[in-house]
Amino acid sequence: MTHTVPGFSASGISAGIKSTAALDLGLIVSAAPAVAAAVFTTNKIKAAPVMVGIDALRQSGGMVRALLVNSGNANACTGAEGMVHVRSACGELAAALRLDERQVLMSSTGIIGVPLPLDKVTGAIPRLVSALSPDGLDDFAHAIMTTDTVPKIITGTVRLAGADIRLCGIAKGAGMIMPRMATMLSFILTDAAVDPALLASVFRAAVADSFNAITIDGDTSTNDTAIILANGAAGNPPLTADADGAAGFRESVSALLRDLSRLILKDAEGATKLVTIRVIGAATADAAKDIAFLVANSPLVKTAFFGEDLNWGRIMAAIGKTEQDLNADSIDILINSIMVVQNSRATGHGPQAEAILGDDEFCVTIDLHNGPASAEVATTDLSIDYIKINSSYPT
Amino acid sequence: MTHTVPGFSASGISAGIKSTAALDLGLIVSAAPAVAAAVFTTNKIKAAPVMVGIDALRQSGGMVRALLVNSGNANACTGAEGMVHVRSACGELAAALRLDERQVLMSSTGIIGVPLPLDKVTGAIPRLVSALSPDGLDDFAHAIMTTDTVPKIITGTVRLAGADIRLCGIAKGAGMIMPRMATMLSFILTDAAVDPALLASVFRAAVADSFNAITIDGDTSTNDTAIILANGAAGNPPLTADADGAAGFRESVSALLRDLSRLILKDAEGATKLVTIRVIGAATADAAKDIAFLVANSPLVKTAFFGEDLNWGRIMAAIGKTEQDLNADSIDILINSIMVVQNSRATGHGPQAEAILGDDEFCVTIDLHNGPASAEVATTDLSIDYIKINSSYPT
Repeated sequence: MTHTVPGFSASGISAGIKSTAALDLGLIVSAAPAVAAAVFTTNKIKAAPVMVGIDALRQSGGMVRALLVNSGNANACTGAEGMVHVRSACGELAAALRLDERQVLMSSTGIIGVPLPLDKVTGAIPRLVSALSPDGLDDFAHAIMTTDTVPKIITGTVRLAGADIRLCGIAKGAGMIMPRMATMLSFILTDAAVDPALLASVFRAAVADSFNAITIDGDTSTNDTAIILANGAAGNPPLTADADGAAGFRESVSALLRDLSRLILKDAEGATKLVTIRVIGAATADAAKDIAFLVANSPLVKTAFFGEDLNWGRIMAAIGKTEQDLNADSIDILINSIMVVQNSRATGHGPQAEAILGDDEFCVTIDLHNGPASAEVATTDLSIDYIKINSSYPT
Repeated sequence: MTHTVPGFSASGISAGIKSTAALDLGLIVSAAPAVAAAVFTTNKIKAAPVMVGIDALRQSGGMVRALLVNSGNANACTGAEGMVHVRSACGELAAALRLDERQVLMSSTGIIGVPLPLDKVTGAIPRLVSALSPDGLDDFAHAIMTTDTVPKIITGTVRLAGADIRLCGIAKGAGMIMPRMATMLSFILTDAAVDPALLASVFRAAVADSFNAITIDGDTSTNDTAIILANGAAGNPPLTADADGAAGFRESVSALLRDLSRLILKDAEGATKLVTIRVIGAATADAAKDIAFLVANSPLVKTAFFGEDLNWGRIMAAIGKTEQDLNADSIDILINSIMVVQNSRATGHGPQAEAILGDDEFCVTIDLHNGPASAEVATTDLSIDYIKINSSYPT
């Protein structure tokens, strides 16, 4: 299946940034200036392309024509030279495409602390530009992969306010996924015409419920970036907050990002299971989220999932780490719909629940019986392969 | 070598609590009531022996005659029945030894959520008591082991205020070690006569700098307990805060607990390396500690240590996760004395530093150039064996 979005062309090539012949440089170009919204890493150590990108978006008033993305090098911890490299690459690309340089954004992912091989990037720009095609999104999705084993791309069409709107999401993930969206790049394209304020609010909310509600290892990165571009090629009257199609657009973007974040989890380094941690009955939303992440990030809980071992004591111990208010004697734990702990004690239904742990996906529900708030976080198991992959990552 | 402390006898036997024939029940008895100080888990889910022990110490005015410890069952998440079991076991032991029941403390470690096999414990008490011997501390150290591969016991003698004072520390650790001292039991014995207020202050400070400054996997447990008993058998004039030997006693206890916490780390589940993370130049002590723990707990950093791979970008990313004030462009990182990052950029000394990563122990120093505060945390690598051990822990 080929993924396309009207008004966008894309390409992906091998520029020799990676030591292999794998694709490592990608480009997306919008035929018209697109309204953009972006969410960047909250890590205090920000890569050069993130810092330059924040600045460019401010200067361009949030309008974007092109996204240049490389894998194999994060251009992080590269000092002032790293910033110069980003500006040079964006400048060369802008010249080649006759665009305003401020409307070109760059993202990078890969090894930290090694200077970006700028010559390889700029030397490849002519090939990259001539490879542009409406069918090029798949190559782009390949070009941004690092330890990902499969490209992550989802396309959908939705009828909104009388127009067929196309939405496409492309992401790379793998390790270092955490609340604050680590080593994750995600690019969302739509041909809808969308008011900038609505796009920003829709995207912020969708990211909070998707990329910021998954965790693999609790680590965050220097390069995380999620960008949505809306180029208006669908010809719909621009969607504003009170327009007919606004609610549908909000739902569609949220659903796409949730699906994309699940794809990232399923391809997490070494992961064999996708586990949803649902906390209900919490005193506050903060307490629910805190406890959901404590469980979702616990190495002991995650290794037990890998072992398909119903070690619910580890779940209880992870819950108890919270500094939030807790009623220690009234906690229920369910594996899918099987209650294994009631009022903080074993129910005897362990064997039935343990059978579920053999599945690829299941849900752990924790009822705190302490209030009305809830939260949901998706996580993975922690496997031997996670260690193998991450102890031998080439530096 | 046999470990002894005047005025203390001990024993360790197999009571059938574990499914193997391994020792699983231990006892320490002081010939005279000992002044006690204790630190318990901060986990909100506390095991029954912890809750009963806190209560007993309050009732006894902090005086202890006997410590009863079982492995193989944590007696946690066992409800009111669990509390009854602790009181019954302590009561039977007090009767057998003709002691005040409030001066008997129990600790447990092992699987959570399974009722303590009380009959096995009480049925074994006569054998446990008749096995008591001044030479029994080694058996006791064996009896409290779970996934530990070696018993952890250290004895030393120090001349304080004209008397030879004996100090002995016994611990079990393995996984679930974290700031808030998880699944860690530690018992410190001394024949010194010590004022209760001094003992409490010395012990609190020593625990903060040892057991609460190590981390294996960031998980904490329901059962953590560290207790010190001072029985006065050395015949010294009781040490008070302003006595001659007070400073020496403080140093000796701190050194013992640091040594013991290092033994725990060296025997951490699957660990192959002991790594000290030292943060200097931080704006505040809180910032230093926060950043040291972010690095010490990062799975990506710890797997890189396992792979003996100088992936300092992961250290930078872990530092950047802090919500504390940070100067992102002025960070130095040293492996032992080799500076690999200066002003947040590679120095080119990576190859020399990488050779050090092959050692069993090394130190990572992070200079934030942001103030006068510092902190030190000891951690381990994250290995394939950690996953193997923890994904197949019998439940």
